[in-house]
Order: sequence, then C-alpha cells, then structure tokens
Amino acid sequence: MMTVGIIMGSSSDWPTMKLAAEMLGEFDIKYEAEVVSAHRTPKEMVAYAEGAQQRGLKVIIAGAGGAAHLPGMVASLTNLPVIGVPIESKALKGLDSLLSIVQMPGGIPVATTAIGEAGAKNAGILAAKMLAISDEDIDLKLSQYTQSLEDKVEAMQNDLK
Amino acid sequence: MMTVGIIMGSSSDWPTMKLAAEMLGEFDIKYEAEVVSAHRTPKEMVAYAEGAQQRGLKVIIAGAGGAAHLPGMVASLTNLPVIGVPIESKALKGLDSLLSIVQMPGGIPVATTAIGEAGAKNAGILAAKMLAISDEDIDLKLSQYTQSLEDKVEAMQNDLK
Amino acid sequence: MMTVGIIMGSSSDWPTMKLAAEMLGEFDIKYEAEVVSAHRTPKEMVAYAEGAQQRGLKVIIAGAGGAAHLPGMVASLTNLPVIGVPIESKALKGLDSLLSIVQMPGGIPVATTAIGEAGAKNAGILAAKMLAISDEDIDLKLSQYTQSLEDKVEAMQNDLK
Amino acid sequence: MMTVGIIMGSSSDWPTMKLAAEMLGEFDIKYEAEVVSAHRTPKEMVAYAEGAQQRGLKVIIAGAGGAAHLPGMVASLTNLPVIGVPIESKALKGLDSLLSIVQMPGGIPVATTAIGEAGAKNAGILAAKMLAISDEDIDLKLSQYTQSLEDKVEAMQNDLK
Amino acid sequence: MMTVGIIMGSSSDWPTMKLAAEMLGEFDIKYEAEVVSAHRTPKEMVAYAEGAQQRGLKVIIAGAGGAAHLPGMVASLTNLPVIGVPIESKALKGLDSLLSIVQMPGGIPVATTAIGEAGAKNAGILAAKMLAISDEDIDLKLSQYTQSLEDKVEAMQNDLK
Amino acid sequence: MMTVGIIMGSSSDWPTMKLAAEMLGEFDIKYEAEVVSAHRTPKEMVAYAEGAQQRGLKVIIAGAGGAAHLPGMVASLTNLPVIGVPIESKALKGLDSLLSIVQMPGGIPVATTAIGEAGAKNAGILAAKMLAISDEDIDLKLSQYTQSLEDKVEAMQNDLK
Amino acid sequence: MMTVGIIMGSSSDWPTMKLAAEMLGEFDIKYEAEVVSAHRTPKEMVAYAEGAQQRGLKVIIAGAGGAAHLPGMVASLTNLPVIGVPIESKALKGLDSLLSIVQMPGGIPVATTAIGEAGAKNAGILAAKMLAISDEDIDLKLSQYTQSLEDKVEAMQNDLK
Amino acid sequence: MMTVGIIMGSSSDWPTMKLAAEMLGEFDIKYEAEVVSAHRTPKEMVAYAEGAQQRGLKVIIAGAGGAAHLPGMVASLTNLPVIGVPIESKALKGLDSLLSIVQMPGGIPVATTAIGEAGAKNAGILAAKMLAISDEDIDLKLSQYTQSLEDKVEAMQNDLK
Repeated sequence: MMTVGIIMGSSSDWPTMKLAAEMLGEFDIKYEAEVVSAHRTPKEMVAYAEGAQQRGLKVIIAGAGGAAHLPGMVASLTNLPVIGVPIESKALKGLDSLLSIVQMPGGIPVATTAIGEAGAKNAGILAAKMLAISDEDIDLKLSQYTQSLEDKVEAMQNDLK
Repeated sequence: MMTVGIIMGSSSDWPTMKLAAEMLGEFDIKYEAEVVSAHRTPKEMVAYAEGAQQRGLKVIIAGAGGAAHLPGMVASLTNLPVIGVPIESKALKGLDSLLSIVQMPGGIPVATTAIGEAGAKNAGILAAKMLAISDEDIDLKLSQYTQSLEDKVEAMQNDLK
Repeated sequence: MMTVGIIMGSSSDWPTMKLAAEMLGEFDIKYEAEVVSAHRTPKEMVAYAEGAQQRGLKVIIAGAGGAAHLPGMVASLTNLPVIGVPIESKALKGLDSLLSIVQMPGGIPVATTAIGEAGAKNAGILAAKMLAISDEDIDLKLSQYTQSLEDKVEAMQNDLK
Repeated sequence: MMTVGIIMGSSSDWPTMKLAAEMLGEFDIKYEAEVVSAHRTPKEMVAYAEGAQQRGLKVIIAGAGGAAHLPGMVASLTNLPVIGVPIESKALKGLDSLLSIVQMPGGIPVATTAIGEAGAKNAGILAAKMLAISDEDIDLKLSQYTQSLEDKVEAMQNDLK
Repeated sequence: MMTVGIIMGSSSDWPTMKLAAEMLGEFDIKYEAEVVSAHRTPKEMVAYAEGAQQRGLKVIIAGAGGAAHLPGMVASLTNLPVIGVPIESKALKGLDSLLSIVQMPGGIPVATTAIGEAGAKNAGILAAKMLAISDEDIDLKLSQYTQSLEDKVEAMQNDLK
Repeated sequence: MMTVGIIMGSSSDWPTMKLAAEMLGEFDIKYEAEVVSAHRTPKEMVAYAEGAQQRGLKVIIAGAGGAAHLPGMVASLTNLPVIGVPIESKALKGLDSLLSIVQMPGGIPVATTAIGEAGAKNAGILAAKMLAISDEDIDLKLSQYTQSLEDKVEAMQNDLK
Repeated sequence: MMTVGIIMGSSSDWPTMKLAAEMLGEFDIKYEAEVVSAHRTPKEMVAYAEGAQQRGLKVIIAGAGGAAHLPGMVASLTNLPVIGVPIESKALKGLDSLLSIVQMPGGIPVATTAIGEAGAKNAGILAAKMLAISDEDIDLKLSQYTQSLEDKVEAMQNDLK
Repeated sequence: MMTVGIIMGSSSDWPTMKLAAEMLGEFDIKYEAEVVSAHRTPKEMVAYAEGAQQRGLKVIIAGAGGAAHLPGMVASLTNLPVIGVPIESKALKGLDSLLSIVQMPGGIPVATTAIGEAGAKNAGILAAKMLAISDEDIDLKLSQYTQSLEDKVEAMQNDLK
C-alpha cells in the first residue's frame, strides 16, 4: 500500500518531480508516481482524488506548471493534505505556476513549496514531516536528515578553505 | 433555451460579471447566470460543463479570481468555447487571476479578457462575436454597437470642448 | 475560400504562429497566413481587417510581441472574433506582449491565449471551438482531439512506469 | 496540551492570523497564539521552535510580512510541519511576504498558503488536514466542512436568482 | 495654427492629460486637445495621424491606459515625434499602459514618459524641448522654467526648517 | 559640428547603442559617441550635459542599464531633449533600467524607448523625428524610411509563401 | 557639527524621512535635514555631496521616489557611506524607487533599505550601526534599543492574551 | 584579527561572493569567508552572529538567494552593520532574494546591494566606506579607487574611438 501519491500533468514534469520521489525514498516512505492531468484527463483526476484516501494514501504531492490547476483541483476533492509544486514554466519562469497554485480561495488549502527542483525536493520532506506527526520512525529519520544538512555545511566550509 | 452560460465561483463576483450579462442583454442573447465553484463544488462543475452543450449552450463565460481554476477546468470538459474573465483580487489586483486563466497548456484554450469590469463587459461582446459567425442578427447588432462606440467618442469630444 | 486568417507582424513570428496553423490543419479548417504589421503597414492592416468578413473569413488569429497592437487594432475594425497570441519577447519574455493584448478597454475584446507556442496552438483550437458552434464536423473532430489528449496522458503514464 | 501553535511577528498580524485560529476552533483543535519575532526576539524564536515538539505541538502556523523570515527559520529548527502565511504588506501587497516564505532552499520546506486572510483561513484547514492523517474525528469534521462549502455555494446560487 | 496635438482615448483621461496642456500653456505653445480613440474610432485616428503634419502640428502627445495602442498607432502614421503618456490603470496601476506604449518594435519609436500625472506634465515639457531645437523663445522659457524648479527646491528647503 | 550626442556609461553598452548610431547614419545625421558615466565620472557628465547645447548638439541619446541614472541626470542639466535607452540588464532583463529611466519626476522628462536593441534603434529614429520638425531633408528621409518598412513587410509576406 | 546628513528631493518626502531623523535622535546622533534634488538642483547636489565629508558628516541618508537618482548620484561623489531609502511612489508603490536605488553598477554602492517608513526608520538605525563601529556610546545605545524591541514583543504578547 | 566577515549559505554562492572578498583585498582589509546557513545550521548562525563583534569583526557581509534569510537573521543578532547581497536565483533571477533581504521590518536594517556580482563587489566597497568613517588609510584608498574608475572610463572612451 502506497503512502504518498506523486502526480503531475505531464511526463515532462518528471525530471523535477523525481526529486520529491528521491526524498521520500530517503525516508523509506512508499509512493506512487502517476501522470494525471487536470486539463487532459479531468475525470480521471476526479477519480484519482476521490479514491486516494480509500486506497490508503495519506498525502498527495502534485506538480504543475503555467495555469497550474492540478494541485488545487485535487485538494478540493479529498481530505488529504495536498502539496503543490510550481514547475518552472518557459516564459514566466514559474511565477505563473506559483500564483496559480498558492493563491487558493479560503476553504481549499494547497501547501505550496518553491518553484522548481528545490520545491519538489521540499515537497518530499514536507510529506515526511506531515507523516512524522504520527510516525516515530519517520520523525527519527527527519532528525538524521537535519543532521546531514549540518554535515554538508561543514563539508562546504572545509571546501571553501 | 439559453445560449450563453455565465458562471462564477462566488456571488461576490457578480458585481463584475453582471457587465457580461448586460452586454448580452444589449445583443438580445439569452443567458443564464450561475454560481459554480471549481473548488467548493468540483463535481457540480464537472456536471455543468459536461451538460452545457447538450442543454443548448453555445458559449460559456467564466469569471474567477486568485488561483482562478474555473475557466480552465470547464474548458477541459466541453467543446464549447470558454471565455475567462480574471476578477480583480485583493492583494495582487488580478495579476494572479490573469495568469491562472490565460497561461493554459497547449490543448485546452481559454479565451481570456482583461482584468475586472472591462474584461467582463468584453466577455459579453466576445460571446456575441462568436455567435455572430452564424447569426446575422447578432452581426448586425455588433455593427450598431460599434457605431455607438464611435458616437460616444464624438460626445466626449464635444464635452472636452 | 479561407475560414481563418492567421496574421502576424513579422515573419519571425511564424515559428510560433505555425502551431496555430497546424492545429487548424488537424481540424481540416482552411486558413491563410499573412504578414500584416500594425506599425509598419497600418493602412494595409486596416484594409485587411475591414475586408476580412466580406472575404469569408470567420475568425482572425493575430500574433504579436512587445507593444503588441495588432490583435487589438484588428479587433476594433471587424465584427469577427479576434484571437490574440502573445509572442514571447526577448527582454520581458512576453509579459509585455500579454498585457498589451489582454488589457483591452471595454468595447473591443480580444480573446487572448497563453504566451508563446502553447498560446499559438490553443489559438488554433479556440478558432475550431468557435466554428464548431455552427459546424458539427468540427465539433466531432474536437471530441476526437480531446480523446487524443487523454490517450497521450495514458501513453505518458506508461512511459513513466 | 496544545496541538497547533500559531505564531506571528507582531500583534498587528493578529487580525489576519485569527482566521487560522477560528478554523482550528471549528475543528475543535486546541491551539496557542503567540507573538514570536524572528528579528526582534531571535533567541526566543529558537527556543520556541526547538521546544515545540516536546511540548506536544504537532503543527506550527507562522504568519509574517515583508522580509518574512519567521516561518522558514522555525521550519529549520523543528521536525514539525510549518505552515507559512504571507501577511499582506503595505507597499508590495504581500508579494514580498510570499516570495520570502515560499522560495525556501532545498532541505527546509514551508507549506505556504495564499497572501492575507484567505491564506490564514487555509492555514487552519491545512493543519486540520495534516492532523486528520491520524485522527478520524478531524477527518470527519473535514468532510462536514467540505459539505458546508457546497451548501454555501447553493445558498449563493439562490441569492443570485 | 496649432503646434502640438494632445490626444487621448477617452475624456476620462483628461484630468491626467490636462497637465500636459498646462505645461504647454506655460511655454506659450499653442495646442489642441482631442478625444481620438484607437479602438473605438480607428479610422478617425488614422485620419488624424495622417493629417497632423499637414495641418501644421509639430509634435503629438498621446495619452492611453491599459492595452494602450493610441501612441504607437499614431506614431506609425506620421513623421511627427509622438510622446506617449501611460495613464494609470485600475488593476495594474499603469504597468500595462507603460509596457504597451514603451515596448515598441524597431522602426516606430514612441517617446514614453512616466505613468500618470508626472508623465503628462513631462510630456508637455518634452514637447517644448523638441520645439526649442529650432525656437529660441521656447529655449529661453525652458531655461526660466529650470530656474523656477531650483527656486521651488529652495522654498521647500526653507519650509523644512 | 555634431548634431546628436550618443552617450553610455560603459563601452559594454556599445553593441546595443550602435544601433542608434546606425539609424542616425541612415538619415545622414552627424553624431558623436562617448562613454560618459553618471556614477564613475559624475563631474564629466555634468560638464558634458552643460556644454552640449553650446557645442551645437540638438539631441542627446543616453543608454544605461540597472539603476540607470545617466539619461535623467543629463536631462536635468540641459534644455536639449534627452532620449533614454534602457539597456537589458543581467538579472532583471532591463525592467530595472526601464523604470529607472522612465519614472522621472514632474519637471525633468526623458523620452524613453524600448528595452535593448529595438529601443536603441528607435532612439536614432526618434532623434531624426525631432530634428525633422525643422529640417525638410530629414523629414523626406523619414518618409523614405517608412516606405522601406512597408517594403520589408511585403518581402516577408513573400517569404512566408 | 553634524554627523549625519538626511537629504531628500522634495519636502513631500519628509513625512517618510522624518522617521530616520527620529531614530537618530533616539541615539543622540546629530543630523541635518535638507531638500537636495538630483533633478531640479543637480549642481547643488554635486556641491552638497562633495562638501559633505569635509563638513564633518560621516554618513548620508538619501530618500527618493520613482526614478530615484539622488542616493546613487551622491554615492558617486563622496567616500561617505550613503544609505538609500526608496520612497513609496504613487503608481508602482515604490518598486520603481527600490530598483532605481538598489541596482547600482559595480563600483558605486548604495546601502538600500526597505520601501517607505520601515526603510526610513531602518536608515537611521543603520547609520547608528555604522557609527558604532568606532563609537562605544552609540554601540551601547544600540544594545539598549535591541532590548527595547524585545520588550515591545513581550508587551504585544501580553496584549494578545 | 579579521575586520570583515563574509558569510554565505552555500559554497555555491562563492563565485558571486568572492567579488566582495576581492574588493576588500584591494583595500587591504582583512576578512574571513565562511559558509553559515540560516536554514541548515541555524544555531551555528546564531553563535556566529552573537560572537562576531567580540571576535573583532566590524562589518558582516552576508550573501543569500531565494528566501534569503541569512542577512536579516544575522542583523537581528548583532550591533554590527550587516550588508546583504541578493544572489541571483534560478527561476526568479534574484527578485525573490532581493525582496527577502531588503524588505526588513522597522528595527532591523540590512544594507542591501544589487542582485548578483555587482552587488557582491559593491558590498566590499560599502564595507570599506563604513570602515573609512574612522580609518584614514581606507579613506585614502577609496579616493584612489574612485580615481581608478574614472581612468577606466577614459580607457573605454579611447577604445570606443
């Protein structure tokens, strides 16, 4: 049974979204990755969002670019927390994606992360933080991950010298 | 039987969207005005969009603000042309609404008009222009409307002097 | 007799605008493609816009970049619906093109699509949607096109796995 | 024992942040509301963030405006998920707040919501969604809340007519 | 015979554009003020622009807001220098007006001034500077005007103390 | 004796600014090109601006990028009309240059053109338009140039076919 | 003898800039406040900037709005550190002021603070921080000021409860 | 004993920040360069900021990108003046970095410079200007540096010819 669903509107979003998958892998959290398009397969999207909780998913990560409707639409169809990752778009560099995801009306939140790869990576960590509320193993791994960030800074400090 | 469906996510959008209705009235085009929310009533939205063509609608005008998903979602569910009106939002003044509506991915167009009241008014006229492709009466009224714009400029010119 | 006129201010816009042409081709809609510049040939533009309806055109697609005046000027000179495609500009990446096209004053609508190639492609589809109001063949082809989008998502889904 | 900590840099943020509190109240989730300033009381902020999990908090909601550092700094100091609410700022209307909160580097996510009141309200709901992962009562209340949104749309629909 | 033509798309632009008129008055430069709309009276606009030089005009000042096409269109139809004043628009505060006026393609310049009243005032002064190239009286008055600006600073300096 | 002074803050601006020079060459207008920096040689800049009119210059074209102070400072020191060309900057792509040049306070106009090469080219043409107010030769050449633009469109039209 | 010079282009900037003065007063730092306009009194500005160090000034605070050239021009004419305060402008809300001040070319720094009142207040504190490098009294007062900020947070915390 | 501390959140910021170091070297000012991350090593950052003054540092230069919290957080923890350098970020090109650094609340100033390399270079010069308040040697070197800028303009002027 999968715990996190990673969805995106196109396979071209995968190079960004796979960073979310990699972080989940680092925390030993089971995930599925699916192409679900708000605009090209709206009814499959409704079915995916409505069935997610029953299938055992606990968090959904949705990446989308431009007029990025996927995260917000899925959020309107499930009790699960939805994390939205603004994919960097060609002309406006993801500013359109960001505003389309984050500026949700009162009632339907999307937990939005940064534009592009940093945002995808952070979506994986944020899902882990949500799950760690009730999972001590993940909480422990988060502490170890935080330690690894500190170690990386120390290593960079040595590099600089 | 209605020809144009005017939809919006909240009745608070009506003071803007009624300008679309007034223009349609000026062209004697029958319309319905409905509150249909992409986020609060996603399945009613799907039903509305899927049934629109069969009920005889020929054009849909959708107003939305912020992370404005309504026009794009409806456009993905019907062959009818969908006109999107970006409602002026509080903090970002409709720039978020505009980008969320206009930056649609290839495959699913939304005919976007200006932010706020000018956009709503123009949505009504644009619907008339679409219908006039196959309706000579509306085409004639469009010519009269164009004439009225010229007259208004002449009147303003006199005011200025 | 042509049904759709695709116009642009410079042949350098063609690599973007040809995506509109390709979509029209996919729907078997006859089109002409012309270089008509609002700024370099303003009077030819007036003549083109004023004669379009009489020559049998039913929709005009106009691409323009920067201070993109072509779509709005043509829209002011014809009853035909005009679709505006914001060409991606060098410095401001099409944000200037978008605002110059979409922010039309009340009275003169331009049906604006996304910046760049997605917008050009969608302009072709939007023209088809407008024509489908009174053309069952195009309506049928739109349904097939929508199906093809779904199929593409399924194929991407398989690729991902 | 409190479940959610609502923090903000100044009591002037409370008129916005109280909407988060009201939503938590609606879901019967216990919360505390504190003024904790990243810039004026940086060490108290560190202490608050480091002690939060041990005191039993499960989610932190942090509101901040301008160069909004509070959510990101707290997120760097705790395993708890941190929700960031961009407060509408005077000159730049919260665009600065939004970018300062959402554009976090890889490693330290902040779950960002919309600018201003809608964002604060959604922060409360998002906290509930996170808690509902392991709390059936809150999950049930979320379903009821979703139903209430639908009812509100229906009421608006009647108003419009 | 008039020397400068002040044109605008609507009489609602006059409260801004009259500042251009006032400055011209201060330099004893004869001007006419007309409502000429690029979108509502496109052919009158063509006639105005084409006839301007022959009627003795030497500079044209054009104010426009939103998708502000008037200055650029007139510039494409006359050898006269055209000064464009971006009128402050409702939603986007004149950023749309500015980009629509200033981002002209190579070949058709518009001398753009600041958004709103400062821009209108400066348009009047800029016209005077252009005329002063071949008019010593205006050149002298410009020197006096520059002196008056210095005096105003001195007065403000005294106020401050 | 030179008629137009082209100035820029750095020789790295020359690849852009030479387009202004080329246009002036096309109109047989004599020009000088100088590196004059508002920030690195402020007093030379004052001397240049104050002496320009006496040396016989009639128009000044100033290119600048980033916090682009050169055009506005020169404009404050001479009766000559100053044309400002916003050089495309690295990070903000010339939006900073544009706002720093165009948003001048009431009293000190700068005739601003588009960002980058189109703006530099147009600065040359705009200078010609200003000079043509009292120079029939240049006026004639402007008419020929306008004709050449039309011819270019015709050539592009043939290319497209 | 004055230690800090506060300058601004217009007495209308004083309601903002007086917050810098008040902060300096709080640290018992002597200051002068002058109207010095880069555009209306460029040569007085040069004189002011060149004479500042000799008159005993140690820091200059310059407030400016729109195409805000004052801080950068003064910085190019003195060894003294110059603090730039972007005044909130009417149309663009100080974004133009900010970019015109902060985006200085390499070689001529301006220490830029936030848009508007917060920025003016911080300019006063920043000047104190610069002076405290070699003035223990001011350093002590800075520590007391920091303590007062903490106390204010505590008071707000009590208010909230 | 070091006089200036250059800190940055990642060694990937060094190619930008080394320009600050090079300028300090040019003025014979001793500096240290450290990787100190607000988000990955928040407590080391607190320690660094709190100990800086005691270790003899007189100015801190902090570079950061995206949600750039390092300069503001350090500024809240020391009396030393803190100079913030907005690193150019990938998607938003440093606009996010700039706003996150400059829009500090009243009470905690950060002396912000331009985005990217020009800003880093200017941070080094600005530190020298602050130190020169009480150090005649650096003051003299600043005068020489200013002279070298003038010489460079002269050289460029010759190149152009």
